[in-house]
Amino acid sequence: MEKIPQPVIKRLCMIYQLLNEMFDKGHMTVSSSELGTTLGVGSHNIRKDISCLDGVKSGGSGYDIVNLKNAIAQKFGFENQKAACVVGLGRIGTAFLEHAHNITSEFRIVAGFDSNTNRIETIKTSVSVYPAYQISETARRLNIQIAILTVPNTAAQDAANRLIDGGVKGIINFTDTNLVIRKDDVFVKNMDVTGEMRMLSALIRMDMNNSITM
Amino acid sequence: MEKIPQPVIKRLCMIYQLLNEMFDKGHMTVSSSELGTTLGVGSHNIRKDISCLDGVKSGGSGYDIVNLKNAIAQKFGFENQKAACVVGLGRIGTAFLEHAHNITSEFRIVAGFDSNTNRIETIKTSVSVYPAYQISETARRLNIQIAILTVPNTAAQDAANRLIDGGVKGIINFTDTNLVIRKDDVFVKNMDVTGEMRMLSALIRMDMNNSITM
Repeated sequence: MEKIPQPVIKRLCMIYQLLNEMFDKGHMTVSSSELGTTLGVGSHNIRKDISCLDGVKSGGSGYDIVNLKNAIAQKFGFENQKAACVVGLGRIGTAFLEHAHNITSEFRIVAGFDSNTNRIETIKTSVSVYPAYQISETARRLNIQIAILTVPNTAAQDAANRLIDGGVKGIINFTDTNLVIRKDDVFVKNMDVTGEMRMLSALIRMDMNNSITM
Repeated sequence: MEKIPQPVIKRLCMIYQLLNEMFDKGHMTVSSSELGTTLGVGSHNIRKDISCLDGVKSGGSGYDIVNLKNAIAQKFGFENQKAACVVGLGRIGTAFLEHAHNITSEFRIVAGFDSNTNRIETIKTSVSVYPAYQISETARRLNIQIAILTVPNTAAQDAANRLIDGGVKGIINFTDTNLVIRKDDVFVKNMDVTGEMRMLSALIRMDMNNSITM
């Protein structure tokens, strides 16, 4: 199997999301230039990305949305529901537990973890919750692949280590901590709100300066 | 003033974050290759990024961390605290309101909005809360530049329109809705957890395939 570069994997995931939205709106076909315009890349790139998939052909009116969706889902294994967990059951973590059912059909949140045993005992949720020291063991037992990390910054690295020890391969990191990951096969996505706010603020500032000086 | 490309602005923001962490750990200087290694780009790129800043010189042991931090802060206006708001006061939105003080010194959350007037009346927070129909008027009055959007998907576009009418230039979008923005000077950052989980899941899958076939 040929290796697909990470940017192509990411773009195909974005295409998948777009196709879902178009399908929900009742569309049947889509052209590479429509997809390209929405994603801000050339239609040539889109066609090249899609050529990594098996058995997808563009007809006269573009790609069949259902076919293309299925091809991406098959390539990336989206049909197999994956087990996920939430580590850190403060407000944000609890919100994810509560929405556990309707996140998406591809993922099922099967466990929550917190270091505060009082919180573990009093929390009301349909998802099983465990103390933090059981992270590795439980993740391994439940075959958890992806974790949403919503612990305080100071607890982030330790929680990540336990998750990786338990075989977790993907972490959605909501803390401000830059996690140190010593394994090549573990992927982290930082959801750093402060950092993103700072970036927006820089973009706004530079944009204003351009408008003023032009 | 020369225009700085968006990727460079983003990278300088990431450097800023790293410098803050290094400073907190007691470091005084840092080299372009250290920064490059952590960010996964060449040291040449880092030096080029930093050359966009005014008055930063690299000494024998690299850059002075405080100098570099200050130069970035000055370039992007980080010294001026900016007003922000939260729209949608469910669990995630409320969590942001509660942490309003310690998000960072650069931002101050000055308002919360929700369409549910019962919620507005019963919520316990030190931040002023308003009904959703007052978004534009309040954003303008309080000079709010950045908004954290945590409303249900169906309410996202309407809330974004009101924010932009009120002069907001940056939106951190926690909904799954792809916002349609008709202004060039408004920036949106999507914090789409489902999409990010899906992307991690694709990366994990393709990584596993590589390991198997190699």
